[in-house]
Amino acid sequence: MAITEPLDEDAAAWLADRCEVVLAPCGDDGALGAALERADALIVRTYTRVDAALLARAPRLRVVGRAGVGLDNIDLRACRTRGVEVVHTPGANTAAVVEFVWSAVFASVRPIDPLERALPADAWRARRDTGLAPRELAGLTLGVLGLGRIGSAVARVGGTLMGRVIYHDLREIPATQRAGAEAVSRDGLLAESDILTVHVDGRASNRGLIGAGACARLRPEVIFINTSRGFVVDRPALAAFLRANPEARALLDVHDPEPIPPGDPLWGLPNARLTAHVAAATVPAKRAMSRVVERVW
Amino acid sequence: MAITEPLDEDAAAWLADRCEVVLAPCGDDGALGAALERADALIVRTYTRVDAALLARAPRLRVVGRAGVGLDNIDLRACRTRGVEVVHTPGANTAAVVEFVWSAVFASVRPIDPLERALPADAWRARRDTGLAPRELAGLTLGVLGLGRIGSAVARVGGTLMGRVIYHDLREIPATQRAGAEAVSRDGLLAESDILTVHVDGRASNRGLIGAGACARLRPEVIFINTSRGFVVDRPALAAFLRANPEARALLDVHDPEPIPPGDPLWGLPNARLTAHVAAATVPAKRAMSRVVERVW
Repeated sequence: MAITEPLDEDAAAWLADRCEVVLAPCGDDGALGAALERADALIVRTYTRVDAALLARAPRLRVVGRAGVGLDNIDLRACRTRGVEVVHTPGANTAAVVEFVWSAVFASVRPIDPLERALPADAWRARRDTGLAPRELAGLTLGVLGLGRIGSAVARVGGTLMGRVIYHDLREIPATQRAGAEAVSRDGLLAESDILTVHVDGRASNRGLIGAGACARLRPEVIFINTSRGFVVDRPALAAFLRANPEARALLDVHDPEPIPPGDPLWGLPNARLTAHVAAATVPAKRAMSRVVERVW
Repeated sequence: MAITEPLDEDAAAWLADRCEVVLAPCGDDGALGAALERADALIVRTYTRVDAALLARAPRLRVVGRAGVGLDNIDLRACRTRGVEVVHTPGANTAAVVEFVWSAVFASVRPIDPLERALPADAWRARRDTGLAPRELAGLTLGVLGLGRIGSAVARVGGTLMGRVIYHDLREIPATQRAGAEAVSRDGLLAESDILTVHVDGRASNRGLIGAGACARLRPEVIFINTSRGFVVDRPALAAFLRANPEARALLDVHDPEPIPPGDPLWGLPNARLTAHVAAATVPAKRAMSRVVERVW
């Protein structure tokens, strides 16, 4: 069995008890080629492209496991053609991503500002009277673009906190499965969301979904969050929007390409926060994703 | 009309259009005395004690407005005896406090760690693979001590995020009004909560509720949050607990006394965060609390 990106230790140990495991980093082509030649099974995470070219180098391959949710990096048609089965772990990272999104929302709307030392009475009073948080979630609208597994969980939390929760999805979703959110048009979602969070899937038509046209509809003080796919955001367009609207804020956790190159237009903008594709980076999520080894086995 | 602590500007302007308003800071006894002598109405916030002694200095007083929720600083019996009506703004700060509590939870469990600059591929991978958040809310138990207006709103949010939500309250609460939380004993709450948030009222019997005995039952990695009343926490006992349990964390927003004196035992503990009684410090909450002026009028 070949593994191209590190797994949870327990999962790696579980496999090692059952078969020969070769760790072949996807960046090291020589090691990868040697491992593929002999592998019956392959386990990947985010950055290994499983396509016809890779399959051609793996004559014995029967199953590919993706430790994670999205299958963007796997050419399902090529696998089917070759008779290679693909298994993954949908749902394994839902809680982790939902919690990351809400943490980003709270850090933006209600940052916690601890005291460093004792204050005299007048400074204490000043601290209480100035620097009030300008907004409450209870008075704002949350917009969810893509009401799938993660989007609907985000919306469900929003139902207990927000003034209003709206969504847009390409699919027609039955009213009972909308997590309490209200269906609106794509343009309505862009225009009415105080907080806009993207949870679309990896289909090609989502490339550049948040481009200049979409940005032109956003509220000047929007909080924009993307934890879905990097290619959804047209980065020069978003950078221009953030520069023109200093009250707006963006938190992007996914990027195209990754790592983010030094010349990315979002570096250095005071209202852009970039994180290293870590929304699913929790011990429980990694453990759940690594359980793909059992399905592969 | 005498006002002893600053009000929202709109509310102050609204009043000034209707009557003579004297701002008499509660720390300035001379000004306060002069204002009380003439006042038909008095508006206070947190730090003015309205007791028999104050009432004795205000012969014309007919109504006291508390811009806020708790009436701890107002001697209701003395007011009743004198025929002085008391009005306040229950609910005005509920959303603000609930959002503060959840912001504290997220900052503790899923801190957002933005990148400062571009990383090479190996550092990027390391960032994703190390520093995983050890816990997800989805696997933890939230405990709510005091299931009143704020406690139940906190519990309702918890129902969409947490593995389990439990509460303890002195009152027997009908099952339909428990915001989805499960009733447990006080000791059970202390022992089973991964996150424990206190929302009790200002009754005298709540003094020192979280003392050495309670701390002895807490989980070693508990996240403890108090936004209710300062005197609920026995600070030397909590400090000893935090020192003995470095994985535990406390966020206290209310203190006794306020401001926190330089000698407070919680200063300097790496796992204690102290904020300046700001859980309700939002523009919408302050505006809603200042609406007490209309009720006073």
